[in-house]
Amino acid sequence: MRIAVDAMGGDKAPGEIVRGAVAALKQGEVELLLVGIPEKIEKELAPFGNTVKGRIEIVPATDVIGMNESPARALRQKKEASVLLAARLVKEGRAQAFVSAGNTGATMGAALFQLGRIKGIKRPAIASPLPTTRGMSLLIDAGANADASPLYLSQFAQMGAIYLEDVWGIANPKVGLLNIASEPKKGNELSRKAYTILEKLPLNFHGNVEGREIAAGAVDVVVCDGFVGNIVLKLIEGLAQAFTVRLKGELKMGLRNRLGASLALPAFRRFRRSLDYQEYGGAPLLGVKGICIICHGSSNARAIENAIGAAAGAIKGNIVAKIAENIREIGGE
Amino acid sequence: MRIAVDAMGGDKAPGEIVRGAVAALKQGEVELLLVGIPEKIEKELAPFGNTVKGRIEIVPATDVIGMNESPARALRQKKEASVLLAARLVKEGRAQAFVSAGNTGATMGAALFQLGRIKGIKRPAIASPLPTTRGMSLLIDAGANADASPLYLSQFAQMGAIYLEDVWGIANPKVGLLNIASEPKKGNELSRKAYTILEKLPLNFHGNVEGREIAAGAVDVVVCDGFVGNIVLKLIEGLAQAFTVRLKGELKMGLRNRLGASLALPAFRRFRRSLDYQEYGGAPLLGVKGICIICHGSSNARAIENAIGAAAGAIKGNIVAKIAENIREIGGE
Repeated sequence: MRIAVDAMGGDKAPGEIVRGAVAALKQGEVELLLVGIPEKIEKELAPFGNTVKGRIEIVPATDVIGMNESPARALRQKKEASVLLAARLVKEGRAQAFVSAGNTGATMGAALFQLGRIKGIKRPAIASPLPTTRGMSLLIDAGANADASPLYLSQFAQMGAIYLEDVWGIANPKVGLLNIASEPKKGNELSRKAYTILEKLPLNFHGNVEGREIAAGAVDVVVCDGFVGNIVLKLIEGLAQAFTVRLKGELKMGLRNRLGASLALPAFRRFRRSLDYQEYGGAPLLGVKGICIICHGSSNARAIENAIGAAAGAIKGNIVAKIAENIREIGGE
Repeated sequence: MRIAVDAMGGDKAPGEIVRGAVAALKQGEVELLLVGIPEKIEKELAPFGNTVKGRIEIVPATDVIGMNESPARALRQKKEASVLLAARLVKEGRAQAFVSAGNTGATMGAALFQLGRIKGIKRPAIASPLPTTRGMSLLIDAGANADASPLYLSQFAQMGAIYLEDVWGIANPKVGLLNIASEPKKGNELSRKAYTILEKLPLNFHGNVEGREIAAGAVDVVVCDGFVGNIVLKLIEGLAQAFTVRLKGELKMGLRNRLGASLALPAFRRFRRSLDYQEYGGAPLLGVKGICIICHGSSNARAIENAIGAAAGAIKGNIVAKIAENIREIGGE
């Protein structure tokens, strides 16, 4: 499998990106195309010498899109941006997937312009892994569509279920509509209308799922629009941080607790790690005609390694074809 | 101050409600009207004997609205329901505020029908305290309006700011619009339009606030529609639970950790408590012509005691008059 990696995308690029790519070679069978400014990439690769020979190739890109640039303008002006080239490699069949931790809007734009949408898909959506006490759920849409229609939501649900079946290997995944009450007729106009479509689809539809149930892993796929999804994702991130900060503070009080803290430290490490998005690999942009894995802007090597693993999984699961074959379009515009 | 308490509302009514009311007498200067079925209330009051004489009066109600009843139908059919009577006591001036942990929809309906809206207020909203690492913020709307307009949001922001100034005593509170990016033009249609109104209002408007920043207490007032707000609130509740469960699990592994856990226990208790909504009193329904405090359905005595404290604070802060004087209506429908 050949996977293109935007070596210039992300707060810690290119250093952590390149180190993550090298680490991903452990997974075997993958060949990586590092897209970006050759000198910078070579400098980061140098320490690894010949160990990466033949498995990592550098694809030169002259431009880089900054994290805070306007995606639309940047994509128009920087035709040779690393993220655009990475997407183009997939379009041209030189890679089967691309990964970027850069400007999310630009990554989505590059994927859309270069790969286009799968026939029948109204809007691609970001499918983000969500840690729960029971393991892992999938949140879709995690931010691609701030405004959505009931039909969009019904397609997010289908794409999410297909992804879990064919990539995560979860048989007949439970799909839940994120809502403010369990009753079908409750919620806002969007969720009420989406419910009536989801009922009719060949899905394992669990009905509405409330915010309280997400963390407990009540369903495998949590469906919502990109506005709600992005707020949920960032809220969890912020809370995980706040909880560890607060807990550390509490434990620092008094010698007795300091001793307790030092003894409990290994548990904390596992706890913090269990809440660390860096461990979960990137989030696929589902619905485009190719595999695009979007990573958190602050991704470290570990996150990139996991994202490349997610890309490999999506390739093996043949996700694009599976979505094209199974997606349904019912329920108006 | 006279405060009416719906003694029959909530999963733990009337026992915990009555015990919470008795505990609230400590706050001094409050007199309580316990609304509900006399025999049941008397039975719970009996253990306290004469200690509550003259401070607690029972107001008989023959009906009770269940937690899972349809609010609209229940309010039509049960004219003598405890929550309706509690609201009526405020309307008739026999109490200055009412508190209920019952069916939230029914409580809002009772407040609206009996008290009506403050002139100029388009939609009342639930203002819920939100624990942060820096202390406490206010989330508005926490669930009264699943669908909202930009004008509604702009009024939620104003009511929230007025509440913090006059009840919590926070000078010039920082107001943030919950959104998926910090840039003014980002977000969904609702948030983009609301932003342009909020800019024009005489508020300490901080701009957009992202999910990640909420837990850190970036702003004092977090403004959103009731759909997003309710999901945020329940998500925090579920995560607090999930985190403590997971942490306990981690700490149970291995003798070394068990010892650490036992030594760290006091810290955990404080930690858990800091995340417990029962500690934060109820949430006022702002915008109605009277004071209504809505409590979590599973409220215990401690939560009711705090909710009565919140009611007393709202009375002292003269919140209804303050909102009526200061609310502005700009920005279309």
